[in-house]
Amino acid sequence: MDKLGNTIKKIKTVDSSLIEKTQHHLDNLTKPRGSLGLLETLAKQIVAITGNDKPLIKNKTIFIMAGDHGVTEEGVSAFPKEVTVQMVYNFLNKGAAINVLAGHAGAEVVVVDMGISTEVRSQKSEVRNFKDKKINFGTKNMVKGPAMTRDEAIRSVEAGIEVFEEQLINGLDLAGCGEMGIGNTTSSSAITAVMTGKSVKDITGRGTGIDNKSFLHKVEIIEKAIFLNNPDPRDALDVLSKVGGFEIGGLTGIILAAARENIPVLIDGFISGAAALIAYKLQPIVKDYMIAAHCSAEKGHKIILDYLGLKPILDLNLCLGEGTGAVLAMGIVEAGVKILTQMATFKNASVSGRN
Amino acid sequence: MDKLGNTIKKIKTVDSSLIEKTQHHLDNLTKPRGSLGLLETLAKQIVAITGNDKPLIKNKTIFIMAGDHGVTEEGVSAFPKEVTVQMVYNFLNKGAAINVLAGHAGAEVVVVDMGISTEVRSQKSEVRNFKDKKINFGTKNMVKGPAMTRDEAIRSVEAGIEVFEEQLINGLDLAGCGEMGIGNTTSSSAITAVMTGKSVKDITGRGTGIDNKSFLHKVEIIEKAIFLNNPDPRDALDVLSKVGGFEIGGLTGIILAAARENIPVLIDGFISGAAALIAYKLQPIVKDYMIAAHCSAEKGHKIILDYLGLKPILDLNLCLGEGTGAVLAMGIVEAGVKILTQMATFKNASVSGRN
Repeated sequence: MDKLGNTIKKIKTVDSSLIEKTQHHLDNLTKPRGSLGLLETLAKQIVAITGNDKPLIKNKTIFIMAGDHGVTEEGVSAFPKEVTVQMVYNFLNKGAAINVLAGHAGAEVVVVDMGISTEVRSQKSEVRNFKDKKINFGTKNMVKGPAMTRDEAIRSVEAGIEVFEEQLINGLDLAGCGEMGIGNTTSSSAITAVMTGKSVKDITGRGTGIDNKSFLHKVEIIEKAIFLNNPDPRDALDVLSKVGGFEIGGLTGIILAAARENIPVLIDGFISGAAALIAYKLQPIVKDYMIAAHCSAEKGHKIILDYLGLKPILDLNLCLGEGTGAVLAMGIVEAGVKILTQMATFKNASVSGRN
Repeated sequence: MDKLGNTIKKIKTVDSSLIEKTQHHLDNLTKPRGSLGLLETLAKQIVAITGNDKPLIKNKTIFIMAGDHGVTEEGVSAFPKEVTVQMVYNFLNKGAAINVLAGHAGAEVVVVDMGISTEVRSQKSEVRNFKDKKINFGTKNMVKGPAMTRDEAIRSVEAGIEVFEEQLINGLDLAGCGEMGIGNTTSSSAITAVMTGKSVKDITGRGTGIDNKSFLHKVEIIEKAIFLNNPDPRDALDVLSKVGGFEIGGLTGIILAAARENIPVLIDGFISGAAALIAYKLQPIVKDYMIAAHCSAEKGHKIILDYLGLKPILDLNLCLGEGTGAVLAMGIVEAGVKILTQMATFKNASVSGRN
């Protein structure tokens, strides 16, 4: 608990006095005031987060936290749970969507076994990109009891903080959340229902693509898990342990550590959003360090964004996870920062001002 | 007229049989079906446009067409008209927003004098990036008569086609529209009103940032120009000549030439959208080659997108022009193509399919 408690304690509010100063500089650049919309907003947020009026985004990392879910034995997913570990190998072999998009964005991918139900055999060459932080071999089935113990919940968050700290040594200016875990939209729906107070039916989506009958079954399973475990919405660790997942705990750690280190963190889709809810409940000011990458096609995601008051950068009808939305948004965040730091002023460029 | 007529004649419908084939390939990749949303749609469109099932986007160019507008003497803009040429120098000195964003996206910027009201002195070193296609020293004031002659309108479109052809020699896989011209939201509002039949008041926005009084004056000026010139909406060249601009004609040429050469073209904001309307009216099938980069904060732009049935990639509250939205969207288009061509299949990656 020391690592988690200390991390939470060290998170400070961002320096919002820098926002006005940055807007003043943006207004001197050769463009009509405010005409770069969200790019300007992002530039201001990055300055406020980093405390640097000339931020440089050089090192970008997507953290893919992977874990299995005992609740998959209830038949809530379109894919078998073996896909979790199979996709981890796909990440390490650079064949997945996130690898392609990270290559495009110039971002590094770090894959973490937070709690896959089998051992992961990683090659020596992959050491930098694979981390074994396994808390357990998958969570327990949450319709039969808590998904994990409170101690496991804490350890999963602390493992996420550790992963972040290890990557920080390699250089890190912009972080992105990603995940893999068959069954994790079920867990995320439960977390979101408990945290926001919205109904399970309004939150739950089709995950990787289930049919109508399976959808109704999924809703029933989530309602049952919440009823049985009765998680306390005021206690984020209680919610995480009873209906969460190890990868969600890991992402919570990534978000908290990013805030502690004054590094902006891109929230990906629905599952990353559930982790953001847990992090927010543990320390509300962490919100200022979050950037919503996109609005997922998974319908519960919008409920999370509205609850946190985050405006997403992209809306591309994605629902893949892995950090795909986060890595696409990295390019837009960088664009905003470059606008701030590389454009000419009206004076330097000898361009006339307004009439 | 030969160049324009021949170009229009050579534009063929895209091969839509390739769309289904491409979706089949996308469905074999290691991700749930359709989970990459708009990225998949873009990949399919690029295959259909290029006729290449493994498209490669290597050379990207933003064409910035610049021209002045006689109607600025009516006081419709927040900036003096000298800013058009001053910004052209800023483009050539790489100090503008489009330079920064093009550098970020790895795109080339080609700046074209389509009809600036003064001579542009370009340096030898800038020859590749600057082209003199001046049709005239700015358009005439459209509240006193046609903005240009019909012959000038044709020559402006043909100059755009020429610029495209010249760049094609350097290699070109993805084109983007950009523009600079103080007063050109006034001209674009007039074109949009005539072409879509919507009211001037519903279309007209604040351009680079005019106040309420100037806004009402701007609406009045546009209504007056349309009343006086009575452009025929069935005759795109009549509309372009009476209430258009040289840079808008140039962009029309870029769009038509891109379609003729089976190259995808990103439509930027409101002014590029007005050029897209002209191109569409000259040859409706050109629409299949257009990709809407973003939805501008300039309100008439949404009316154009709806009229053409185009769904924008980004919505970042931009209203700068220059091609800034187009160049930001290039990264997303490329991401879609890379997903199609670089991801592993379920079979290759030994990942299990659906239950």
